[in-house]
Amino acid sequence: MDKPIYLDNNATTPIAPQVASTMRPYLEHLYFNPSSMYDAAAQVARAMSEARNHVRELIGGVPANEITFTSCATESNNAAIFGAVRALPKKRHIVTTAVEHPAVIEPCRDLARRGWSVDFLPVDRQGRLDSAEFVRALRTDTLLVTVMHGNNETGVIFPIEELARITKETNPEILFHTDATQTVGKIPVDLSEELQNVDMLTFSAHKLHGPKGIGALFARRGTPLRPLLLGGHQERGRRGGTENVAGIVGMGEACRLAGENLGASERVRAQRDRLQAELEERIPWLEVNGAEAERLPNALSVACHCIEGESILAQLDAEGVHASSGSACTSGSLEPSHVLKAMGLPFTALHGSVRFSLSRYTTEAEIERVIEIFPPIVEALRRISPYWDTEKASPRADVLHGQSCLP
Amino acid sequence: MDKPIYLDNNATTPIAPQVASTMRPYLEHLYFNPSSMYDAAAQVARAMSEARNHVRELIGGVPANEITFTSCATESNNAAIFGAVRALPKKRHIVTTAVEHPAVIEPCRDLARRGWSVDFLPVDRQGRLDSAEFVRALRTDTLLVTVMHGNNETGVIFPIEELARITKETNPEILFHTDATQTVGKIPVDLSEELQNVDMLTFSAHKLHGPKGIGALFARRGTPLRPLLLGGHQERGRRGGTENVAGIVGMGEACRLAGENLGASERVRAQRDRLQAELEERIPWLEVNGAEAERLPNALSVACHCIEGESILAQLDAEGVHASSGSACTSGSLEPSHVLKAMGLPFTALHGSVRFSLSRYTTEAEIERVIEIFPPIVEALRRISPYWDTEKASPRADVLHGQSCLP
Repeated sequence: MDKPIYLDNNATTPIAPQVASTMRPYLEHLYFNPSSMYDAAAQVARAMSEARNHVRELIGGVPANEITFTSCATESNNAAIFGAVRALPKKRHIVTTAVEHPAVIEPCRDLARRGWSVDFLPVDRQGRLDSAEFVRALRTDTLLVTVMHGNNETGVIFPIEELARITKETNPEILFHTDATQTVGKIPVDLSEELQNVDMLTFSAHKLHGPKGIGALFARRGTPLRPLLLGGHQERGRRGGTENVAGIVGMGEACRLAGENLGASERVRAQRDRLQAELEERIPWLEVNGAEAERLPNALSVACHCIEGESILAQLDAEGVHASSGSACTSGSLEPSHVLKAMGLPFTALHGSVRFSLSRYTTEAEIERVIEIFPPIVEALRRISPYWDTEKASPRADVLHGQSCLP
Repeated sequence: MDKPIYLDNNATTPIAPQVASTMRPYLEHLYFNPSSMYDAAAQVARAMSEARNHVRELIGGVPANEITFTSCATESNNAAIFGAVRALPKKRHIVTTAVEHPAVIEPCRDLARRGWSVDFLPVDRQGRLDSAEFVRALRTDTLLVTVMHGNNETGVIFPIEELARITKETNPEILFHTDATQTVGKIPVDLSEELQNVDMLTFSAHKLHGPKGIGALFARRGTPLRPLLLGGHQERGRRGGTENVAGIVGMGEACRLAGENLGASERVRAQRDRLQAELEERIPWLEVNGAEAERLPNALSVACHCIEGESILAQLDAEGVHASSGSACTSGSLEPSHVLKAMGLPFTALHGSVRFSLSRYTTEAEIERVIEIFPPIVEALRRISPYWDTEKASPRADVLHGQSCLP
């Protein structure tokens, strides 16, 4: 069988070959504990320090001591949210959105259950936040704003620069956190310029062609924060536990390469735009989720009314194409995507959504192949859909916005 | 230069070559997110499941769903302690010891600061707990006992089977946790037999010739526990975050190999015993920390009165021998070891302690080499020690137990 066409880069990415080779010595002869007292261990510690430099350079050249390595974006998000809550336990209001990743939603829900007041701001039909509503949500006892940068399912980008500025203008003591797992490495993220009002930013390596099991938490100097993992002195006391040296070195190299390749995002965007245009052209009643919003250059989420996303994915898989029906973190359950639900998609679009997410390794030929095979898959599935005939026989204007296709 | 002689295996271990090769595909072409819906991802999920089987088999064939993968032993320990505290917030008493790893001590100190009542049980001059004192510490409102299995610095083994049985006889509702990071893979750990009264057990891969950045938490079915990392559905909702697939697969292979090689521990013990006997023979006033206690087969902690552990390590390093002066997690600070302090070692022994920790890869020739070079290093350093002359000129009977060598 041919090499599969991997269009699920928002779930995880292929490790760049240079990343794997940079990691290798640290999985072989350079196994020392960086805290140990001999020269070989110091060599390992230096490699970690170089990796930290690559990480900080990718996000605006912030100071090295503002980067803490963690085990994943989920840990980073938990560390940011619970760390702020523990540092400032008396301020008990949090502002977030209804479309965050579970790693932010679940900590916020947990706090809500334990008596914190949490605003989950809604989004519109295009997945956008309302800035006026955001301003109204800020209160004198607001501890934290946590709003994602780019959405993993739709690719919709929130205006973090503006939201952070508004937050600090309203009250400089409110902490501003953004989950940038989907943006770092795909679009410029500059904490020294545009994002200078952001106090905490989180991301992981495996979304930018690095290994799984390693993430980072940026926390600007002076940010009140208590550690999530208590233990040894590692990461200047901010995160106990023997460092995942190979992971850290891999994340450093992945960040270095991502910085070098940021320019590729325009090529990726052109591929995505072409895929979108061709699918819209060839498939009737196809809805592009978040089409009118600013989006990640690599992401395309399409709703194929009246058929099941899971059936589409199975057919795509049979053709060697890897895509997803939503976030990998909620797939496996039959619950429809909370992101698309928050956008107000009708029932049939919720269940018929497919996400293609490209990367700098995606080729023109791969896009052509998807353009060729995807429309017939949709057509064939619609032919056997119990809802499609009804819809086709009496098309209604509200099909894309109402409750059509419901039993 | 010759291959270094690595005798710091309680800090971290060389990755077994088979472990590194088992991991490699998951750092190369098998990069899929195990939660994704296509066959290639299911293949990755199956590899994780196989790894989980190897892990559970090493600790007594416990059910697969009682194992949660984490990022390290520190995370596992934090998850066990804070997870129990959150599940049963009304029971506010914890029993632990003064010689735990920082990953247990620090969470317990944190709880003590926040109003929990925590007993840090003392140890005797040999590093042993007093069972009678342990029994007296248990109370009707005791939530959790957390006592390590093998000590990382001295190798002293606590009688976990007995302590867990006593705990459950006193009150079956008290949760019993043991940090077994230093014992799993070195001595038999059987949660179905001897350790059947243990509710939670934690360890990591990099202490048994696996990779850094991956650990496990065993929690027996029915143990009240709230997750530490909230997010996606991974690990059946017990630990959010995309799984560290390569790390998990590596941990599985490391556990499989450790099980196969458990027999090697008798050879390791013989090497350790020979090293100990020869050093005691050749070095005057050498104290073996925990000599009279049951100890890990691979560990030897010696106190060289009147000289500095750091100076010894530097000389050893120059000779290509890697050892440590205590736990890697506290080295770097000039604080003397809290473990040796709790054992009541005098000032000069605290600062003059060196830990050798062997592994199944240690050779006879390496042990011979250390026997040859270590005594002259101690002798040379003592010659320039300001305290040694005084001691030598007027040896006192209390030198090993009192305050000798103090300025």
